[in-house]
Amino acid sequence: MISDMRNQEFLNKALSLLPALKETKVEVAQTVEVYKEDSEIKIEKTETYSNKQLNKGSRIYLDFGDHQVGYLHLKLGYTGSHPDAPVWMRIHFAENPVELFENAKNYSGWICSSWIEEEQIHIDTIPSEIKLPRRYAFRYVMIEILDLSNKFNLIVEDAFCTAVSSVDDEELCEFQAQSKQLARLDQIACRTLHNCMQTVFEDGPKRDRRLWMGDLRMQALANYETYQKNDMVKACLYLFAALPMQDGKVGACLFLEPEPEVDDTQMFDYSLFFINTLWDYYEATNDRETLEELWPTALRQIELAKEHLDEEYLVRDSDVLGWCFVDWNLNLNKQASAQGILLYALSAAIRITQVLGEVLEEEKLAELYCECRNAANVRLWDKEKQCYISGKDRQVSVASQVWMVLGEAVEDSAAQQLMDRVENLDNAEGMVTPYMYHNYIDALLHVGEKNKALQKLETYWGGMVRLGADTFWELYNPENADESPYGGTIVNSYCHAWSCGPAYFLRKYFKMKEE
Amino acid sequence: MISDMRNQEFLNKALSLLPALKETKVEVAQTVEVYKEDSEIKIEKTETYSNKQLNKGSRIYLDFGDHQVGYLHLKLGYTGSHPDAPVWMRIHFAENPVELFENAKNYSGWICSSWIEEEQIHIDTIPSEIKLPRRYAFRYVMIEILDLSNKFNLIVEDAFCTAVSSVDDEELCEFQAQSKQLARLDQIACRTLHNCMQTVFEDGPKRDRRLWMGDLRMQALANYETYQKNDMVKACLYLFAALPMQDGKVGACLFLEPEPEVDDTQMFDYSLFFINTLWDYYEATNDRETLEELWPTALRQIELAKEHLDEEYLVRDSDVLGWCFVDWNLNLNKQASAQGILLYALSAAIRITQVLGEVLEEEKLAELYCECRNAANVRLWDKEKQCYISGKDRQVSVASQVWMVLGEAVEDSAAQQLMDRVENLDNAEGMVTPYMYHNYIDALLHVGEKNKALQKLETYWGGMVRLGADTFWELYNPENADESPYGGTIVNSYCHAWSCGPAYFLRKYFKMKEE
Repeated sequence: MISDMRNQEFLNKALSLLPALKETKVEVAQTVEVYKEDSEIKIEKTETYSNKQLNKGSRIYLDFGDHQVGYLHLKLGYTGSHPDAPVWMRIHFAENPVELFENAKNYSGWICSSWIEEEQIHIDTIPSEIKLPRRYAFRYVMIEILDLSNKFNLIVEDAFCTAVSSVDDEELCEFQAQSKQLARLDQIACRTLHNCMQTVFEDGPKRDRRLWMGDLRMQALANYETYQKNDMVKACLYLFAALPMQDGKVGACLFLEPEPEVDDTQMFDYSLFFINTLWDYYEATNDRETLEELWPTALRQIELAKEHLDEEYLVRDSDVLGWCFVDWNLNLNKQASAQGILLYALSAAIRITQVLGEVLEEEKLAELYCECRNAANVRLWDKEKQCYISGKDRQVSVASQVWMVLGEAVEDSAAQQLMDRVENLDNAEGMVTPYMYHNYIDALLHVGEKNKALQKLETYWGGMVRLGADTFWELYNPENADESPYGGTIVNSYCHAWSCGPAYFLRKYFKMKEE
Repeated sequence: MISDMRNQEFLNKALSLLPALKETKVEVAQTVEVYKEDSEIKIEKTETYSNKQLNKGSRIYLDFGDHQVGYLHLKLGYTGSHPDAPVWMRIHFAENPVELFENAKNYSGWICSSWIEEEQIHIDTIPSEIKLPRRYAFRYVMIEILDLSNKFNLIVEDAFCTAVSSVDDEELCEFQAQSKQLARLDQIACRTLHNCMQTVFEDGPKRDRRLWMGDLRMQALANYETYQKNDMVKACLYLFAALPMQDGKVGACLFLEPEPEVDDTQMFDYSLFFINTLWDYYEATNDRETLEELWPTALRQIELAKEHLDEEYLVRDSDVLGWCFVDWNLNLNKQASAQGILLYALSAAIRITQVLGEVLEEEKLAELYCECRNAANVRLWDKEKQCYISGKDRQVSVASQVWMVLGEAVEDSAAQQLMDRVENLDNAEGMVTPYMYHNYIDALLHVGEKNKALQKLETYWGGMVRLGADTFWELYNPENADESPYGGTIVNSYCHAWSCGPAYFLRKYFKMKEE
């Protein structure tokens, strides 16, 4: 249920802080042929599109050189007789060339196929200049002539993209990476963030295009190290605080159109991340006024989370699908992760009370933290396996260990040893998203394993680079690059905010050493 | 080849005379189900569209009650959760319900399938109000939800059409028909004309949407008896005169967008009809200035037609497809019709010289007329068959007789007898379009066969009414209602200017007798 607890003052503040979009004209980098040979996708440069006379069935593939978010413009001309019928064309936008080999009609997964960036349009007047009204996320554009009068041939005389973002790379903080390879990881991560930074921090510019709390936390961290559009983080925090769900819960995500409104999706972890995101914002900006104004919203998330605890301060497990997100692994039991995330949020809340001088509240939260930590170590620690377990089936997973470490249920050498063991846990549920990988890297850094963190980051995000990524993906399984929890790569998002972590980690922890 | 003989002064005059479009809001008359039972199309009233909750695969059929030309507006709402993905829908517009049972993908005729009034659109924001940017000709609109997120149902809260025309029915001259049936014929003919009267007289608002000389002649005649938008006829005449082809030939048709330009299609008969249309315009308006200004253009068409004559003043036959239109019967030999049409145009030209006092020119034209008439009767008259033949195979057709009668190669009782024989000619090529039927009715009236003309008109156009026509069609073969020279009814035009003849004939020749 969505509440009427809208805070109009917060909303006005948020809306006034939302950035204007900057437009950049991007020309076609090259015209290509895209085809498959022995199931491998080949992309070859070919004659410039504007030299081609198109008729029924003709296709051209435009390569914009990098991932773009924006609007396609076409200047259309002809040869032959005056066009005497509309041009009917199909336009397919692709972030990843693999999408060009999938067919919207054959997609039957559970994600709505309306996200597939494919249009059929009719153009009544030739010559003409058209701008497609919808925004797309893409590097490649395939134009197929579905039908054309045989009295003329169509010429795409000019094609360009008006790319949009709230930031441009002139605002990007300078960064010297330790290697070319790491510089490339940073560059791709920055591009990912850049293209998700629209009016709000979107999760992905192709699909969802929404402000999600979980993604925002990571985007904000990367933002402080890169574009430093800190008012945009502030605006997003105020949006969440202005539009709570029933009982004041921070929603998992918000819609901006046609009116700002909270979705009816709620997730235990995402609501709590409001607290960490607020704290991170304060650490980056010292904006005490915001911290003060939004503290009641943060505190309310703790109160609501407490309702999930049993009498021994353990987060009750739940069978409700998606009650707590953690990762896109449907087999994952979330109880232990949720406990760790609660600890992680409580830590941030306690730090906020310290800044605000809320002594009584600090004491209560500290007490709660100890109870929850104790519950974790008494009820979820498996002495035999030497790791945390989750749920009634005592599931072992990477996620549970990572969140217990980040929530500091375990510390110092014990935490370091636990992170060492993570890799060799028998039958442990693994990680499937860069989102969970981000938290894993964070946990490695938390226990001081800098080299291992860097090596894991290079291996995982570098794997996408080796597969040709221009931006980092929503999903990446090194064992199966085409895996999709949605039943088809055509609906995967190949520029996804929660994947921008390398920019944060590399810039914060792996700067080039000063000589 | 298109010439640079553009007459800018004429063009400016034409453009300044073109009418503004009037907009009328048209609501949905009823929501229907459209289905087939034993290959017969059934249309049944059903629950109002706005009560339906639409999800993936849902269809609604909107019936706008009459043929419309205009823009579709949809007001979209939802039930359930806030829409979290675009709506992907297919919208199919149909002038005739038969179109709803054809599939664009299965059409493989020679007309460009881009004319099929079908769109696939994505709507990113719900709730929202959208106006489709393209103009359609339709009575029925089918909306199919191709995909929709399962978090909500779509509601079409309101659907309406902004209908456009340069005339409205308040301007329609009053007319008392002799019977209810004839009143209905007139009404449908007026609707046909009304919906073809846009910025120019279009041939059909669904397909082509162009100013054709042959259609204009008939539309102008109907216009003088109905909407009397005479300046629009004048504008169209000036457009043709302003934008001639090479050598000053009047083109068969013109484009208005993106710039006024003549098509490269030329037809012997269409160029000559400029003269008759100019004469008809003068008769309707007494606008001598226009007659004077456009006379050189008219005369030029005679000069160019003369180049088609052999040394005995007979129009040379041609194998070039479409050199002379006459009718959509591909087996028809056009030579005799062309000879008749030349006589018909010469008659009008002579009358113009008489008004303008161009005595020398009149004499020359009269001499040419006699030579051509003589050639027709010497070389194309078959004494045995007692009719005109056409081409080297001496083809017998209705069209040849009709045009020889209208061109007055044969007159009085001989003409009357010929028109009597037309119906019983052995193996004669018949008529396939209302366009040729119009000329046939005209020829019957010309020889004084009023009753027969009315009976033929009732039978032929009435046949379309009995098949449910809201406007008269481009093509109608009483023996096969679904015939199409284009390989599929889906590209047929069911509101076609050249079919508006009943309004002209009924109002001019069959008024209710004064008591």
